[in-house]
Amino acid sequence: MKSDIDALMQEQNIDALLITGQGAHNPFLYYFTGGGLFTHADVIKLRGADPVLLVNPMERDEAARTGLRVADSSVYSLQSLLKETNGDSTCARALRYQRLLADLGFQSGRLAVYGQTDAGLAHAVLSQLEKLVPGLEIVDDSNQPLILQAMATKDSAEVERIRDVGKKTVEVVAQVADFLTSQRVVDEVLVGVDGAPLTIGDVKRKINLWLAERDLENPEGTIFAIGADAGVPHSSGQSGDLLRLGSTIVFDIFPCEAGGGYFYDFTRTWCLGYAPDFALSLYVDVRAVYNQVVSDLRPGAECKTYQVQTCELFEARGHATIGSDLHTTKGYVHSLGHGVGLRVHESPSFSQFVPVPDILKPGMVFTIEPGLYYPERGAGVRLEDTFWMRPDGSVEALVDYPMDLVLPVK
Amino acid sequence: MKSDIDALMQEQNIDALLITGQGAHNPFLYYFTGGGLFTHADVIKLRGADPVLLVNPMERDEAARTGLRVADSSVYSLQSLLKETNGDSTCARALRYQRLLADLGFQSGRLAVYGQTDAGLAHAVLSQLEKLVPGLEIVDDSNQPLILQAMATKDSAEVERIRDVGKKTVEVVAQVADFLTSQRVVDEVLVGVDGAPLTIGDVKRKINLWLAERDLENPEGTIFAIGADAGVPHSSGQSGDLLRLGSTIVFDIFPCEAGGGYFYDFTRTWCLGYAPDFALSLYVDVRAVYNQVVSDLRPGAECKTYQVQTCELFEARGHATIGSDLHTTKGYVHSLGHGVGLRVHESPSFSQFVPVPDILKPGMVFTIEPGLYYPERGAGVRLEDTFWMRPDGSVEALVDYPMDLVLPVK
Repeated sequence: MKSDIDALMQEQNIDALLITGQGAHNPFLYYFTGGGLFTHADVIKLRGADPVLLVNPMERDEAARTGLRVADSSVYSLQSLLKETNGDSTCARALRYQRLLADLGFQSGRLAVYGQTDAGLAHAVLSQLEKLVPGLEIVDDSNQPLILQAMATKDSAEVERIRDVGKKTVEVVAQVADFLTSQRVVDEVLVGVDGAPLTIGDVKRKINLWLAERDLENPEGTIFAIGADAGVPHSSGQSGDLLRLGSTIVFDIFPCEAGGGYFYDFTRTWCLGYAPDFALSLYVDVRAVYNQVVSDLRPGAECKTYQVQTCELFEARGHATIGSDLHTTKGYVHSLGHGVGLRVHESPSFSQFVPVPDILKPGMVFTIEPGLYYPERGAGVRLEDTFWMRPDGSVEALVDYPMDLVLPVK
Repeated sequence: MKSDIDALMQEQNIDALLITGQGAHNPFLYYFTGGGLFTHADVIKLRGADPVLLVNPMERDEAARTGLRVADSSVYSLQSLLKETNGDSTCARALRYQRLLADLGFQSGRLAVYGQTDAGLAHAVLSQLEKLVPGLEIVDDSNQPLILQAMATKDSAEVERIRDVGKKTVEVVAQVADFLTSQRVVDEVLVGVDGAPLTIGDVKRKINLWLAERDLENPEGTIFAIGADAGVPHSSGQSGDLLRLGSTIVFDIFPCEAGGGYFYDFTRTWCLGYAPDFALSLYVDVRAVYNQVVSDLRPGAECKTYQVQTCELFEARGHATIGSDLHTTKGYVHSLGHGVGLRVHESPSFSQFVPVPDILKPGMVFTIEPGLYYPERGAGVRLEDTFWMRPDGSVEALVDYPMDLVLPVK
């Protein structure tokens, strides 16, 4: 939680945080600002002190609405600094950080840097800042970033915002199900009122519309993949594909609050009309593993133990897994889950391959999403809900939605 | 244009490009991949060679659809590299770049790095890569990034995509105008069918919906700011504000193709019902300057000369400008325009303060957006269109839309 940041900084001997970058879709920045339409912003937080926000002077009113202390942008004007550095924008940016840090009382020490920005620019400016400030150490905590550790546990207001996104998400899922089940079938594919076959593109356009109606957006797209594409976990589906009966459809939807905010992550697998035996057998296995793992979640456990368990359970059912064959593309080929918040993927990670294992804790919001994939056989099944570990260590799916595999058609 | 990249690399003595980062809303990556739902991707391009794409193996089908040469992700598996580096993710990532670069034939030389990613992670990994590859120089070209130079001129397919976004954008603007002019007025504010006053939040929700209906999204929001907020160029407007007659409304809309693609940028200023004299006088001045500057645009000129001209024209009309007072918040307070493409702000820049002046060239797509701002008097006016400089050096607004200040109400 945000209230843990000073303690985490103390524990990890970090003196200051710099959060930088674009205003839109910059989750680490949003964590401090709560939003705002900034072209570029910087937040600096010294240990034990309140964060300070620096923005373009034109964006001063947006800045004031964040409730943060706002630095006087005329003192750190990039235009003035460019004159001072003979037009060297890297030096001007580094000098700006040096002065702002110094004015806040940071002369030397350990600085951690976060935020979405251009990779080359970040490296140039931070390298220059290291030269400019003797005694500055830019911390590399990428094995387990402090900010992700803080964000991994949510306060109740955050949980309710995520749950609210979840409720709206499953409303959209229900609308998609209603839409699909109310179409006509001709030659084993769904056709629209005009008699033309419906496509995945048609469905995705409706999803975008129904999300927008609920003040949600899907900056990272939506997976609606049928047949062989459903057999590849991250295939988003091809817009020209038809909606064929009896083919598995993996529908993985992960929208966020409009303007960049909290996400929800949710997957169901459907077969229109009927499920072939193979699809049904995959579904039965995935659902059994899902149920087993969810009922075994306990606070204090290493998240990756559930990945190990999932691999074992799937292997006992005769499937190849990433646990014994790193490069398999058949069977269970990804990790079990991940934290959800201002990023669709954040801490904790349930992967077996993380540098530092995450511990499952009360306050965490995370997905559990076992799946089985057989691209050569044109089938894939994944089931996913987003869970919250309550303060007492029990676990709940933030919203409920039926898990049925078969969507009946007319 | 993309076809200029090898020549630009030659001219600037750059041996290789690395474009990295998130899959969504990463314009530099999109420039090479044309889209695709990647959690993370890297493109490496050596001078004179085709670009090579490296993605998560689960995203291999999306990768294949880009038409790029795709690196065998199992050879550069982060999981394997983490084992090799005892779980140090920074070293693992740097090692991955070193091996991929070496396998493509790059042993040493000058590498430029671009793409949206986490600032701290980028700095850590690139610092490590510098240690790992003797003879590697990571180029700091942030004063005038090569990739922005290439992107600054558009081929005809790009121009038509931007124009298409523009057409849909003004359709939405027209829908907003129709919506506003069809409401009832009570006590000088617009009220909805239920008798409750309409708010800016109501209008913005409709904008989002109407954009989604056209396969557009607005990742960076929309400015719909009234009164004092209209007097601050980047104030996005407060959702609870009412739609009061006679107040200037700055409506600046800059959506992009859904899934991250080309943007359009467009602004009109409206007064509902009637325009007070002060608003009208600002409008007359802005429109006169707009017309003058647009008619003077010529290929080969430094873009910033038009900013100087704009300041002179506004000062001749009695307004303070950023040209003579860097920190003024009254009068003309921003730069005249910017390139538009896969980013809403890209090259060329019309700012007076750029480290390296951009030259206006055929093929460029850019905004011209003079404005006047008087926050204390509760008024602001901006007019903006997106222009294309044709191969013959003439200039056209990519779409037309009326410039009327007053929107009549019932």
